[in-house]
Amino acid sequence: MSLLVVGSVALDTVETPFGRAKDVLGGSAIHFSASASLFTPVQLVGVVGDDYPLDKLRFLEDRGVDLAGLARAAGESFRWSGIYRYDMSTAETLETRLGVFADFKPHIPASFRSAEHVLLANIDPVLQLEVLDQVSSPRFVACDTMNFWIDGKRDELLQLLTRVDLLFANDAEVRQLSRETNLVRAARWVQRQGPNCVVIKKGEHGAVLFTPESVFFMPGYPLEEVFDPTGAGDCFAGGFMGYLARAGEITEAELRRAMVYGSAMGSFAVERFSLERLRDLTLGEIDDRVRRFRMMTEFEIPVSADVGG
Amino acid sequence: MSLLVVGSVALDTVETPFGRAKDVLGGSAIHFSASASLFTPVQLVGVVGDDYPLDKLRFLEDRGVDLAGLARAAGESFRWSGIYRYDMSTAETLETRLGVFADFKPHIPASFRSAEHVLLANIDPVLQLEVLDQVSSPRFVACDTMNFWIDGKRDELLQLLTRVDLLFANDAEVRQLSRETNLVRAARWVQRQGPNCVVIKKGEHGAVLFTPESVFFMPGYPLEEVFDPTGAGDCFAGGFMGYLARAGEITEAELRRAMVYGSAMGSFAVERFSLERLRDLTLGEIDDRVRRFRMMTEFEIPVSADVGG
Repeated sequence: MSLLVVGSVALDTVETPFGRAKDVLGGSAIHFSASASLFTPVQLVGVVGDDYPLDKLRFLEDRGVDLAGLARAAGESFRWSGIYRYDMSTAETLETRLGVFADFKPHIPASFRSAEHVLLANIDPVLQLEVLDQVSSPRFVACDTMNFWIDGKRDELLQLLTRVDLLFANDAEVRQLSRETNLVRAARWVQRQGPNCVVIKKGEHGAVLFTPESVFFMPGYPLEEVFDPTGAGDCFAGGFMGYLARAGEITEAELRRAMVYGSAMGSFAVERFSLERLRDLTLGEIDDRVRRFRMMTEFEIPVSADVGG
Repeated sequence: MSLLVVGSVALDTVETPFGRAKDVLGGSAIHFSASASLFTPVQLVGVVGDDYPLDKLRFLEDRGVDLAGLARAAGESFRWSGIYRYDMSTAETLETRLGVFADFKPHIPASFRSAEHVLLANIDPVLQLEVLDQVSSPRFVACDTMNFWIDGKRDELLQLLTRVDLLFANDAEVRQLSRETNLVRAARWVQRQGPNCVVIKKGEHGAVLFTPESVFFMPGYPLEEVFDPTGAGDCFAGGFMGYLARAGEITEAELRRAMVYGSAMGSFAVERFSLERLRDLTLGEIDDRVRRFRMMTEFEIPVSADVGG
């Protein structure tokens, strides 16, 4: 089924303890698409400047990413550079140059307007709302956000939440948004604003899905080496939404499986710089990692579940 | 089967956003025993001063905690006071008065020396080693430790590790001990020092068990209210070791179940001050929570585990 993503398309310069990558493919829409396209065709909406190496996006087109919504504007592409130091859990931003992204006005091509699944990546909530005004009747809409919008465009963000089915946020964001330190109460608060579901991403500690009926946990994959965490959250969302779009049904069981595929994709993303690990990733490798996630979490309880007496 | 614990017996004064409890039962051996005794009889070794309200330990004796190893010394009992502020994840210590605990020399009564399961709670590793010299042939020995000993008695701690089957530690401790920031590498490092198994406790993020064969994750239980985290780690260890002693066999499957029962007990512990929640806890409530842990982590993968193609 059709999956639309609207977000940033960037060139990243990333330094980690393992090395440095200059002007590599980045941006939320790119990371998301590279991940989701392993499951389902993707329609991408974003903007690049006239300096963007479009030929490097060929491999995404080859696996079903439709770039009809990728606008070209005169000027410089969005550039981000950051450094991960010893602990690899948070990046220190060295420079952000918005370039043509500063004036981004998402225009959804006619051929994308009937998209059934939509991911509004982390952009101004005003723009996220404008995207929703352009799609006719999506079945499942998810959004991402960040501290900058929670601070600066809280009202618009709350308005957006009334129109989405799922919010992706990290633990700090969901606490900031809800003004609750307890994550369970924070998630329940978000659900009362509109979204049926909340996915809280906790980096190396995994992710939690809150639905109206239940809470579901996936641990982080136990990697001995985290090479470059940039875009891991977008790859998680890509695996989640890509799996869900492919599955078709939105059920509790499918949402749980989406969490597992999202976690798998997030874990692959960090193994190399930029999109390198996702480029040649096979479905067999993904399925193998999904089975490992199951081995890491499964246990049997005694039939009576009664150890006492 | 017999389960021996050696550790502190204290009086705690705890302040949280929900209230204050003065001179309540505390100490690692007490929290551990209150938890483990729901599964199996416990033999406790520790020391109290002549001011300790021994009658308050009656409920532990009533459920099978043998206090024959609880020495009475002239002087003041170990007292700790601390405060949890807004986020409840770490206590700020206001005062520590070791009292008679400063001169604690564990003497294992003859009737305890054939204990098959041993938990060396967080005390000086020199004393932990002396305990092991007094038990004849334990089947399974686990130990806990803290930053103070990792800093100050590293060599003795490393010597202890060659003689234990399992280390309980939180994420900061295992990083400090191994000098590795990556938790997987940190756990593998610990395993190379001796223990087959490492349990890394991550507070609200759950716990991870590393065995020679696998990695197993349990999430933290999603509580809307954490009332008092004091002793949660000891209650976790109590559920873990109590379950394991009762199960008898030390297999991968039993170790996983021990993780689940440990997680359940840790989650109950934080719901009230001190031991209040554990006092009247029933096996039915424990089994119910274990089933909830399963519901929070279970998922089905497609038979072929293949979503692509």
